[in-house]
Parts: sequence; structure tokens; C-alpha cells
Amino acid sequence: MLALAAARLGFDVAVLTPEPDSPAARVSAHEIVADYEDADALARLAELADVVTYEFENVPAGAVERLVGLGVEVAPGLKALAAAQDRVAEKTFLNDAGAATVAFAAIDAPDDIAPALARLGAPALLKTRREGYDGKGQAWITRPGEARDAWTRIGGRPAILEARADFRRELSVIAARGRDGRVAAYPPSENQHAGGILRRTLAPADVSPEVAAEAMRIAGLILAALDYVGVIGVELFQLSDRRLLVNEIAPRVHNTGHWTADACEVDQFEQHIRAAAGWPLGPTQPFARAEMLNLIGEEALDWRGLAADPAARLWLYGKRDVAPGRKMGHVTRLLGRWAQG
Amino acid sequence: MLALAAARLGFDVAVLTPEPDSPAARVSAHEIVADYEDADALARLAELADVVTYEFENVPAGAVERLVGLGVEVAPGLKALAAAQDRVAEKTFLNDAGAATVAFAAIDAPDDIAPALARLGAPALLKTRREGYDGKGQAWITRPGEARDAWTRIGGRPAILEARADFRRELSVIAARGRDGRVAAYPPSENQHAGGILRRTLAPADVSPEVAAEAMRIAGLILAALDYVGVIGVELFQLSDRRLLVNEIAPRVHNTGHWTADACEVDQFEQHIRAAAGWPLGPTQPFARAEMLNLIGEEALDWRGLAADPAARLWLYGKRDVAPGRKMGHVTRLLGRWAQG
Repeated sequence: MLALAAARLGFDVAVLTPEPDSPAARVSAHEIVADYEDADALARLAELADVVTYEFENVPAGAVERLVGLGVEVAPGLKALAAAQDRVAEKTFLNDAGAATVAFAAIDAPDDIAPALARLGAPALLKTRREGYDGKGQAWITRPGEARDAWTRIGGRPAILEARADFRRELSVIAARGRDGRVAAYPPSENQHAGGILRRTLAPADVSPEVAAEAMRIAGLILAALDYVGVIGVELFQLSDRRLLVNEIAPRVHNTGHWTADACEVDQFEQHIRAAAGWPLGPTQPFARAEMLNLIGEEALDWRGLAADPAARLWLYGKRDVAPGRKMGHVTRLLGRWAQG
Repeated sequence: MLALAAARLGFDVAVLTPEPDSPAARVSAHEIVADYEDADALARLAELADVVTYEFENVPAGAVERLVGLGVEVAPGLKALAAAQDRVAEKTFLNDAGAATVAFAAIDAPDDIAPALARLGAPALLKTRREGYDGKGQAWITRPGEARDAWTRIGGRPAILEARADFRRELSVIAARGRDGRVAAYPPSENQHAGGILRRTLAPADVSPEVAAEAMRIAGLILAALDYVGVIGVELFQLSDRRLLVNEIAPRVHNTGHWTADACEVDQFEQHIRAAAGWPLGPTQPFARAEMLNLIGEEALDWRGLAADPAARLWLYGKRDVAPGRKMGHVTRLLGRWAQG
């Protein structure tokens, strides 16, 4: 979707990916199939590209460092990548930037869990510090006796224990920062997960203008603190007392921002390309309210029915194989004109 | 733009083009650079593709015949191509289908011009029967004495002489017909040309509901008569007495339909891919009124100013070289919500 947005603006795209025959490469001018840290591949990318971005926060920092060393602009930069790759570093950074999170503790060994649980309260969520997405690498702990088992289940790796957020709903803000430091945020969306996977986004979320403004303010704090260039996804918990806690940040376009492709004049993908290329950011005001439903696994096989629904805007990602839990596409439905509350 | 629309729906695209490094190939999975009639290239295309379409009406009919012979579906088919490639065949077809045109005469030699001019009235427009677009290959004739000079100016080739249409404005209808015979038309747009090149489209056109319905009815007549599959552009003259004459048909997505990409949920490009692939057609109701301005030649160099205008939706085509009269991109501006009159 980034490559398609780039093409709209007349840019050529080169894709470096370890995956042969990737959907992105099939709509890009240049394809480099190699490990992210392959020196020759990075040199070739640096030769082809004036600016490099990524759409996956687990790109090795070493690859980005090498590109920067070769004189290529990389957006977002290393600071954002470092903050997003380690959950302890992320929450530490967020709190330092003035963005509240749940209380947490770094867990380096299973014996760290019981005292942390006592401090944070039960139940608490054990997550690997690095990697893991769509609910993978996570385990709830209710009693200290579950610590060792949970540690094993997440792979026995450095972890974080997070206090449970007693949240009313999950929101997210998609925001962008240009090279000139200007920030533009889309209004927050409400997100529903099932089995750890995003199921549905409703945007703009049905929240008060104050909550919306606060969510967008938090995103702005984070972007400024990271000296960020590009689009970021900021996931938030809205607590029962209306407070907003940042759950996590994704230094890239975000699944909860896919609705912008059908309900905004400039979507998150074009916005990211604009920011990375040093262009002015576009407007972020939606012209419609929208519901986005992910097509997971075999749900995408109903493409014909979805294509026949005049209210459904269909996206299929061109992935060759259907697998359970795999995001194969999504559908957006416009719910009528939206006027800011 | 067709390749981008196909990618949205999960299709891979193979492009056969005589032009190396074409914008379309740079966003397509497969590129075949060869003459349209190159047998090996056509065989390779037939091997790669389940369905073939074209975005240029001067593709040689022989190439399409060969693909059909290889068992490939080609949409739109040969009948549409034949009608669109020869201006005498086109107007003959249109009149037979019940779509009125200006009066015309086939011109095979310069001596045919004077009697035709006497019958059609002066001034009349001499055009080559085949090829020519954006006003090329055309000459106005006011007096019989200008016949020989005009004949030379258009290249001394088989021609058509067309009576002048005393038109109030130029309209066009972008319409589609699916494999199931269903037709979906976008509301007509009003088009303004300068120097024979489309300058500006305003859509939907400011015409009465009766005129809009009549324009869409004419497009439907043409689609049915051609047993057409895909998107067609039908250019119309609206006369002072409100009658509509067909100026020409384009068996492809059309520059006067580019506005649909920013003002409709399913645009002409996705609609064409849907039709060609045998999918259900999408809705054609715009959600906004729109103005489309072509960026011709050096106008596209102002991309930064256009990108900074929050009301301008910018498209740049990725053409390597700017040339006078060359369409380099376009800008759409949404003019507010549109409700059917």
C-alpha cells in the first residue's frame, strides 16, 4: 500500500525484503531479495534510493545504521526503531516523554516475576521485550505460582511484566510528522481485537472532542520526542476515568489506519510517503465515518460476495497462501458523512 | 493507474509495451518490452495472463486477434477496437446503434472534399480516419479552396470530413459493462479543451437530470451494441437545443474520468479491472463534486506548490521527461458534497 501511494505521486520504489515474490515487490520498480543485514543488498538499496523507510518495526537496527552510514536518509530514524523494538525501552521512553503507560517491570529471569507481580497487582501480562505481535509472545499471570510456566511459554526470553489496564476501550491515533517538524494527526479510531488480532476499527471513534484532542496531543508529544519523520501508530487505552494510557507505538503505517485509504483525501500511506520524501503533509480530516474489518484467513475467500456489496470497499493484499490468523485483506464501509464533534 | 487499481484487488499485472521503463511497468509484476505484434511477446503475455485489456485504442487489431487465438479473454473485444480505430466506422456504428453524431463524409482523396463540404456546410473538420489524438491530425476547412492544403496538413491519408457541431458544451460519460451485461455509468462530466488537449473536467456536469439521464442512456446503447466488457469513455456534444451528439468513443479508461479516483468509492480504474476480471461492477455514485485539471508539460514542475495545497489531490504519472503538451499528471479538487439532482 505504501508502494501504491508512492506511485500515485510519481515516485519509483525499490523493495528490500527477505521474502521472494512479495506483494510489495510486485508493485515496485526494483526488487532486492536478501536478508535485511546483507551488506551488498543494502549498498544496492542505498544506490537506488534517495530515502528509505520501513513498514516493519523489527527491521534490524544494524541495517538502518548501515544505510545511514552510506549517506541515505532513513525515515523514521533509529531512535524510533530502538524505542519500538524493546518494550521496556518503549515504556521508559514514553513516560519520559510525558505519555503515561501502565506500570511495568523489566523481567530478566523467572524469579523477577513474583516481586513484580506483588508491586503491579494481579493479573499482569508477561510479554517478550522484543518481537512478538498479534498477541504472540504474551501470557497472563494471575498468581506467583504461574510465573515459571508463563516464562517458558513466552520462550524464556527477557521480558516485561505489565499491570493490567482496566480500560473501557482501545483507541489509536495515526499521526505524521514532516521533515519541517509539522505534525498532522487523524482523529482517533476505536479498535476491537479478537484472539490478539485486530478485528475491527471504527473511525473516528465515538469519543468526546476532549478525549480526541488529548489522544492527538499525546501522539504529538511522542513524535516530537522521537524527532520523528513519517507516520506513527499510537495505541491507547481509554480508562473508565477517561485517562489515556499509551499501550504501544508502531513506527510505521498501522492496520488501525487502513480506514484512511477510503475515508480521507490523503491516507496514511500517502502521508507517510510525503513525510519521508520531505513533502508537505496532507490534510487529515476524514470526509466520512468508516468501519474497517480485517479479512483474516479464509474470510478473504468470500471476495466475490464482498465485491458485490456496493457498501464494501475491498482490499486484497495479493498474499499467495491463506493461513489461519493471516491478514489477507480488509473491507472498509463508509458510515455516512462525518463532521467534527 | 489500472495497475494500481488491480493491485488493490490483489491481482498481479503483466504489461506488454513497446516503451522501456514505462510508468505502468514500474508498478507491475511482469514487464514485456516488445512491439504489440511481436509473436513471442504475445505468447508470453498469454501464458501469464487470464485476461488482457488495453489502455490505448491504437493497439493493432492483429495483436488482439492473436491473443484471442491463444485462448485469452480480451476485454474490451475486437468489435470495440475496430469501431474506435476508424472514424468513419465509428460514426457509422454509432448511428446504427441509435446514437446520433454530426453529419460526416468519408474522404479518400482531396477531390472528395469540395462536394462533401457543400453537403455538410462550412466550416467542417477534416480528420485522419485512423490515429491522431489530442487534436493531432485535424484541420478546419472553411472554403473549398482550402481542401488540398488541409489534406496535405493531415498527412494525405484517408480521412473523414465532419460537419461542425454548434455545441454549448462538451460532456462525457464514463460507463462500464460487466461480463454479465450489467451496465453502470458515472454521471456525465463537463470537459474543457485547449489546443486540442483536455484541460479541465468538472464532474458531475451542471446539467439537468434529463440531460444526465440521456447521456447515460446513450452510453448504455453503445455498450450493448458492442457487447462490451470494461470501461468506455463516450464524448458528447450538448447542442444549444439540448440534443446530445456523440463526438467519439474511447474503448478504455478516459482522461475525463480521472476525477472518479478522488470523488467516487469505486473509480473508473477499479471498475475496468472488475469488469475485465468478471467481477461485479461497483457503485458509480460520487460522494463529492470535483474539478480535475490536467498538468501539461512544465505545469507538473509545480508539484511542491500543489502538494502543499490541502484542497488539491495530486497525481504524477512518473514520466521521465517533461515535454510541451505532454500530460504529466493531474490535480483533483473536491468542491463539496454532491447530491443527485
